[in-house]
Amino acid sequence: MAASNGSTTTTNDLRATFLKVYSVLKSELLEDPSFEFTDESRQWIDRMLDYNVPGGKLNRGLSVIDSYKLLSEGKNLTENEVFLASALGWCIEWLQAYFLVLDDIMDGSHTRRGQPCWFRVDKVGMIAVNDGVVLRNHIPRILKNHFREKAYYVDLLELFNEVEFQTSSGQMIDLITTLQGEKDLSKYTLPVHRRIVQYKTAYYSFYLPVACALLMAGENLDDHTLVKDVLIEMGTYFQVQDDYLDCFGDPEVIGKIGTDIEDFKCSWLVVQALERANEDQKKFLYENYGKADPACVAKIKALYKELDLETVFAEYESKSYEKLISSIEAHPSKAVQAVLKSFLGKIYKRQK
Amino acid sequence: MAASNGSTTTTNDLRATFLKVYSVLKSELLEDPSFEFTDESRQWIDRMLDYNVPGGKLNRGLSVIDSYKLLSEGKNLTENEVFLASALGWCIEWLQAYFLVLDDIMDGSHTRRGQPCWFRVDKVGMIAVNDGVVLRNHIPRILKNHFREKAYYVDLLELFNEVEFQTSSGQMIDLITTLQGEKDLSKYTLPVHRRIVQYKTAYYSFYLPVACALLMAGENLDDHTLVKDVLIEMGTYFQVQDDYLDCFGDPEVIGKIGTDIEDFKCSWLVVQALERANEDQKKFLYENYGKADPACVAKIKALYKELDLETVFAEYESKSYEKLISSIEAHPSKAVQAVLKSFLGKIYKRQK
Repeated sequence: MAASNGSTTTTNDLRATFLKVYSVLKSELLEDPSFEFTDESRQWIDRMLDYNVPGGKLNRGLSVIDSYKLLSEGKNLTENEVFLASALGWCIEWLQAYFLVLDDIMDGSHTRRGQPCWFRVDKVGMIAVNDGVVLRNHIPRILKNHFREKAYYVDLLELFNEVEFQTSSGQMIDLITTLQGEKDLSKYTLPVHRRIVQYKTAYYSFYLPVACALLMAGENLDDHTLVKDVLIEMGTYFQVQDDYLDCFGDPEVIGKIGTDIEDFKCSWLVVQALERANEDQKKFLYENYGKADPACVAKIKALYKELDLETVFAEYESKSYEKLISSIEAHPSKAVQAVLKSFLGKIYKRQK
Repeated sequence: MAASNGSTTTTNDLRATFLKVYSVLKSELLEDPSFEFTDESRQWIDRMLDYNVPGGKLNRGLSVIDSYKLLSEGKNLTENEVFLASALGWCIEWLQAYFLVLDDIMDGSHTRRGQPCWFRVDKVGMIAVNDGVVLRNHIPRILKNHFREKAYYVDLLELFNEVEFQTSSGQMIDLITTLQGEKDLSKYTLPVHRRIVQYKTAYYSFYLPVACALLMAGENLDDHTLVKDVLIEMGTYFQVQDDYLDCFGDPEVIGKIGTDIEDFKCSWLVVQALERANEDQKKFLYENYGKADPACVAKIKALYKELDLETVFAEYESKSYEKLISSIEAHPSKAVQAVLKSFLGKIYKRQK
């Protein structure tokens, strides 16, 4: 997600508090009584956590605290409330770290967050698969340590279980659709793209933080299907932006050079192009998409422009925004509206 | 674990019932309302489950039903009780499948249960990492589908979470101790071997099935630390047998040719050898252990005989048995004693 719109000072304070909670959680995990660490294995986990968990933008984690604050409607949070919201935020960051460590292995990636992927670090290699599993296993340890006595403990366990299930299922569709060696563009359709994005990204990045905050606020998630639908829609819109910026964004601003075309990604752009292409253009797409050759990439980009995908995107963006705003304003609670508008405000018309 | 000692007919009946439950669970997972399958992804999961879940000896899963029967002290189980005990048994088999799919990737193994490892199957490759994760995610789906309303639902969730945490932590010690390229025998000590075995194998293979049966029987696991200790001890003993048979067992009987010596495994035998070796013998071990050369393997085996590890093992075996029996007989409940003795009976002095 994009950087928070909060004032810089507050944002930095919140980040510092959040990072302090990371240290507490890490210390507890390194002394978990359910396992007898050797010194070597304790050091391994310590290093593995520092390498993989806190180095991202932390937006998913921080948004649990933001959302919980908004749900509390201006009441000052107690230190304990901030701690608990942060702990849930960190559970999401742990989940993210787990997915990224394994995704990088599956994709054969080289770098992540400006450093080598964990599995490429000296002496790590395929141990990273198990480290991914360990990261995942830390989540229920954190939940047990801090939420065991809460009325919403089972709901939390089920929420994390269900969202992880949805994420790995989305990842499965992505993997089998993008099967290396097959390169079958005919599988890339709008419903497939929507399913990949919704399950692989939207649930854990958008719905999960707010669902955590709602549980902490004593809400029953079954009463909040509208919130879920809006956040999934927003997550989908966010990923469409991501796909768009990969090709049409300014590399200086987004901080990397997109490679979706070379990588044969099931991007929103190629799906839209396939929808709009005539027979000749389709043939052209089949011939040039997913090739490392810069000439092929340039040809695809030219076709995207020819099909006026920039306008298609602008229309998609404003339509999504309108739809989201009207759904949000239909919600009976002003506090919930504030949470959802805060998310939308952070991503609408973002350039990075 | 070794084959059940039950009469062949009963064993076959139980197996058939158990396999029927697998089909039911699989159908439910293929229609899980939390995810919108594409036809292709549904077929993928179907095939992936059939390939990885039911093809083993099923001892862990079946022993949940056996244990629950013994805890019910001869009462005839209702159809529903058999179904639920089977479902928990299958959760353990799912857990095992998840570990094996990922272990094979980490070890670069070639075959498993007489067929290529899943990641070596055509078009699977690194998608197997995510399939492992999907297998893991099926467990809470099964638990939610069938145990949501039970008083022990949270305990079940916590049990599976804790045991998975312990297993992956044990796997971590194993991996960092056996670090490829380092081949540092000085790390192979009895406490390290015990920790690897206890955490990586004993919890999920021995404790977990009985703990599931105890929860179904309405017991509180906190009241059963003796049961846990005995089962962990038994699991350790089982793995020591495994290490012993890898070298001294009859390949005709165990169905494979052991390669622990070539693979530089932290086997109970090498740990015992290191404990007993003089300086010359130690040097010899350092020079010859973990080499593929058959001459080196033969030298190690000769040293094991020279150090009389066969007798050391026989003594360990009878001592373990005595200790286990006396712990078991100290247990106040005859039904619990029966469960533990049944486990012990299946493995004591096994040849395969």
